[in-house]
Amino acid sequence: MRTSIATVSIGGTLEAKLEAARSAGFDGIEIFENDLISSFATPRQIRSWAERLGLRIDLYQPFRDFEGVPAEQLSANLRRAEAKLDLAAELGAATMLVCSNVATATIDDDRTAADQLRRLGDLAAERGVRIAYEALAWGRFVNTYRRSWQVVERTDHPSVGLCLDSFHIFSRSSTLAEMGEIPGAKIFFCQIADAPLMDLDPLSWSRHYRLFPGQGGFPLPEFMSAVLSTGYDGPISIEVFNDVFRQTDPIRTARDAHRSLRYLEDLTARATISTPASPMPLERLPPASTIRTHDFVEIHGTVAGELSNLLTGLGFRPHGTHRSKPVALWTLGEVRLVLDDTRSPGSNAKVTALGFEVDDPVASAARADQLNITRLSRETAAGEQVLYGIAAPDGTEVYFCAPHPGSEPAWAREFSKVDAAEHEAVLLGSVTLDHVALTEPWYSFDEAILYYRATLGLEPEQSVDVADAYGLVRSQALRSADGAIALVLNVQPLSESPPVHHRGADHIALRVSDLPATVRRLRRAGMRMLEIPANYYADLRARYGLTDEVVAQLQDLDLLFDRDDRGGEFLQCYTRTVGSVFFELVQRTGGYDGFGAANSSVRRVAQMRSPT
Amino acid sequence: MRTSIATVSIGGTLEAKLEAARSAGFDGIEIFENDLISSFATPRQIRSWAERLGLRIDLYQPFRDFEGVPAEQLSANLRRAEAKLDLAAELGAATMLVCSNVATATIDDDRTAADQLRRLGDLAAERGVRIAYEALAWGRFVNTYRRSWQVVERTDHPSVGLCLDSFHIFSRSSTLAEMGEIPGAKIFFCQIADAPLMDLDPLSWSRHYRLFPGQGGFPLPEFMSAVLSTGYDGPISIEVFNDVFRQTDPIRTARDAHRSLRYLEDLTARATISTPASPMPLERLPPASTIRTHDFVEIHGTVAGELSNLLTGLGFRPHGTHRSKPVALWTLGEVRLVLDDTRSPGSNAKVTALGFEVDDPVASAARADQLNITRLSRETAAGEQVLYGIAAPDGTEVYFCAPHPGSEPAWAREFSKVDAAEHEAVLLGSVTLDHVALTEPWYSFDEAILYYRATLGLEPEQSVDVADAYGLVRSQALRSADGAIALVLNVQPLSESPPVHHRGADHIALRVSDLPATVRRLRRAGMRMLEIPANYYADLRARYGLTDEVVAQLQDLDLLFDRDDRGGEFLQCYTRTVGSVFFELVQRTGGYDGFGAANSSVRRVAQMRSPT
Repeated sequence: MRTSIATVSIGGTLEAKLEAARSAGFDGIEIFENDLISSFATPRQIRSWAERLGLRIDLYQPFRDFEGVPAEQLSANLRRAEAKLDLAAELGAATMLVCSNVATATIDDDRTAADQLRRLGDLAAERGVRIAYEALAWGRFVNTYRRSWQVVERTDHPSVGLCLDSFHIFSRSSTLAEMGEIPGAKIFFCQIADAPLMDLDPLSWSRHYRLFPGQGGFPLPEFMSAVLSTGYDGPISIEVFNDVFRQTDPIRTARDAHRSLRYLEDLTARATISTPASPMPLERLPPASTIRTHDFVEIHGTVAGELSNLLTGLGFRPHGTHRSKPVALWTLGEVRLVLDDTRSPGSNAKVTALGFEVDDPVASAARADQLNITRLSRETAAGEQVLYGIAAPDGTEVYFCAPHPGSEPAWAREFSKVDAAEHEAVLLGSVTLDHVALTEPWYSFDEAILYYRATLGLEPEQSVDVADAYGLVRSQALRSADGAIALVLNVQPLSESPPVHHRGADHIALRVSDLPATVRRLRRAGMRMLEIPANYYADLRARYGLTDEVVAQLQDLDLLFDRDDRGGEFLQCYTRTVGSVFFELVQRTGGYDGFGAANSSVRRVAQMRSPT
Repeated sequence: MRTSIATVSIGGTLEAKLEAARSAGFDGIEIFENDLISSFATPRQIRSWAERLGLRIDLYQPFRDFEGVPAEQLSANLRRAEAKLDLAAELGAATMLVCSNVATATIDDDRTAADQLRRLGDLAAERGVRIAYEALAWGRFVNTYRRSWQVVERTDHPSVGLCLDSFHIFSRSSTLAEMGEIPGAKIFFCQIADAPLMDLDPLSWSRHYRLFPGQGGFPLPEFMSAVLSTGYDGPISIEVFNDVFRQTDPIRTARDAHRSLRYLEDLTARATISTPASPMPLERLPPASTIRTHDFVEIHGTVAGELSNLLTGLGFRPHGTHRSKPVALWTLGEVRLVLDDTRSPGSNAKVTALGFEVDDPVASAARADQLNITRLSRETAAGEQVLYGIAAPDGTEVYFCAPHPGSEPAWAREFSKVDAAEHEAVLLGSVTLDHVALTEPWYSFDEAILYYRATLGLEPEQSVDVADAYGLVRSQALRSADGAIALVLNVQPLSESPPVHHRGADHIALRVSDLPATVRRLRRAGMRMLEIPANYYADLRARYGLTDEVVAQLQDLDLLFDRDDRGGEFLQCYTRTVGSVFFELVQRTGGYDGFGAANSSVRRVAQMRSPT
């Protein structure tokens, strides 16, 4: 599949954009007019930059407000078009995009539009350029792909074809059913964008909120299948207007964009059983190896003493130190934490790595390579397990770990064993790792969603906004197909001057079968949970009609409660925070599969009061 | 007018919110349920906090999903209501807000809703609490104020009345015409919010984008007049859900909220010729003294040598130094700049103060006092002009200067005169100050709009987004009634790591009558303007059908061009940037009254290439 990207999709100068597109692996680019106009490079220089980088200039865009106008306006538009077609030819752009008229169209008639586009086609043909006509979702008269095809069909000019854009199609809730009527040879260009599902006017939605494929809610594999079924064999080009992507590092963002196309290509290839008409070969990624469970979580920082007190209080026991690396393994049942306080001596404790047990670590790593994700190299001494690691957008390290039939992974044997007698007093009873929650920076949040989706096969759930005393926290859960793995990404709002302890912490949630009993045992051993305000319990009583006795027990133990629509119930409580890490303990019954989002505000405000 | 504010409108803990509300001057508060639930204070403690601060608890809110339900659901809802009414009574809240049912209503019938609300009214009456029923714009069956009034009228219970909220009314484009049918005594509460005009679903619009009155597009003085005409005499309460306001300093934000109510009160009092039915006295502000023209601009910084070179190049001449303060006056025609490099020795040059000539400086300052705006105190030696100064949200100082019949303000005489011979070579010919553009931080932008509107009577125009290589810059022009004063506020987007020179600069635009001739003279004197790319001129030729000769002249002089719909034309060019300040030169013909927004992207990218 040939990939392209519109320069408007990323930040920087035109030169920086081209370099970012190349370094991300794109085959071509669309030159967005504003980027050209503000560049000091001549069209010929831009053409030679692109040639030197091995980038095709697939499209020059946009040419606006051309068709459906009275005769005198048409003459002016044709003169304007000649200048832009000359420019496209100078750039070596095969195609110029013409958007359906938004501002100046006065004649709502396909024949007029077609007659006028035919004259434009003649001018384009003289210069060896093609016209790709696109229905904008907010076009004055032409605003559906079906109508734009009627106009192009009637134009019947070899140099005039269609541009299809997934945003304009899905933002109007158009079906793909009529795409079969369009011969692939008349589709001259295909633009693709995802977007969050919003009820906003299409123009504002388009200009600010588009996303890369896989980050929003549009059915893009279906769109791709429909386009390919026509026989279209041109580039698939990312055209995304997004306020955040304009602000981020163009090299990283272009890489994210390219990854989104590789992911979409793979999904499309797997979904399409047979596309007899498609001449475009789709390349599959190595399959995502099935993810089984959390293998380990690594925490770095300099609050080692405090952290080990907290871990000991929860029942974790030191399993030993690594034979060649300065890390220690702490375990509680099958929950494994790797602690390391050597690498970042100045920083607070935070979650720095996540290990996942997968069927085939080599396949997972190979897939990540194909997705252009940075591999991590860890030194491995002879005889030690090879760790396959990749870097997440926020810098968290993600490791693919080999399956282990017994209770202990092979890598754990590299840690010296501590006397087994130490393991007796496991306070929490049976414990599993329920989920891990990470605080993400605002500028790589959508990138992180796609990253975890494409590499680990985690699927995003409905995102929620949690009110914090300093703003709204966007919270996004992702989960593996069988629900065994859950990850929650929280974007901490910016604030004018937040207290340091409120910059957002990571947390690790442990699941137990009887949380009240567990908390009682922990309390007898001297451990206090985060105190929850009495007002919360008064509300709980009113909201759920719980008995006074049940509420009193919850309150006594500082447990938070939630109930879902199907009667599933959830209990949760929190430890104190050490550095930027705290632990949550949860109990799930009746199939409850949320995370107690309704309680997050209360927890966050309570944590402000008890920062440590 | 009695003022109130919902705790959800500002950030911080409940205690911080109450203190912020009091310090801003509010008479009362609405306690938002989430803020109470996450507080460790008991309802009685909260009540006594409020009493100590002299704040009335006007409302407890919200109680959701009560009416229009089957009998068994009603019983549960009544039990839930009893707990919340007890709580409201404990808080000493006179009124509890009940929102129209969104989630659980199944019976679309006014009589059922009324019967059920009547039972709620009985429970409320037992506790001395009133019920204010509000139609949410997204209510399942009841979603207009008219329908909510029908239900309340039918309920016919002394403890059940209406809550009117400007957002829910204007977001559904409801007219105010039917408000006359409602007796003021049955309106139990009135909430007010502004919002930008958007085509977004009302729930998302409401939850994220509400603004304080005067910051958005709703006709709120009309709303106020309609409400007061009913005879309503309760509090007018700000209820604003805004993502940014949650993130900002609660004290500053509460002050902004209170200012918005004072401003609205004044507008309403002035608009309402007679409201015979209104028992609520509206207090007018001292009238905004008519603003005549820019008096001076002050620039601080440590690039004095460079700055004076730039000023000299433009034809500014040193007028002298102040007799008692370490500042120098530079003039060019009637444009006066005050330069000072002593106060902030470590920082770059930036615009630090704006002086405006107004009819009555004392009245302007008195009005600002009433708007709770911080007055600045400048030392004034005996015999010197008193300067009336106030602080703008971004720290810029704003001065009200006395009118002066001659060409020189009285304060200018405090500067020693430099030999008049120096004034001969004024390169720019006749020059006036066209506008000043300031870079604003993201967190005080809406506050700044209201500030300039309320203090100086500048009215905001349509805001525009300008694409920059690092993101979209929101640009908002404000103008005085007669157009003599224009101010442009730009919000620089955040970026991961912007180069320092791109953090956004302030600029001062000078208007001349013949810009080409001016630039030629400046050039002969050795001054170069910011270089504009050739591609810009190729586009200009195509876009406006300008002759080659005209375009060649523009390009030769690095002039940017714009034309409005009515044929008005604009020329503009830019100097180099010194510190964080540059100058723009403009020429307006044919009534053009924009700022060349279409050229801003080109200018911004060109400035990245030539930062100084």
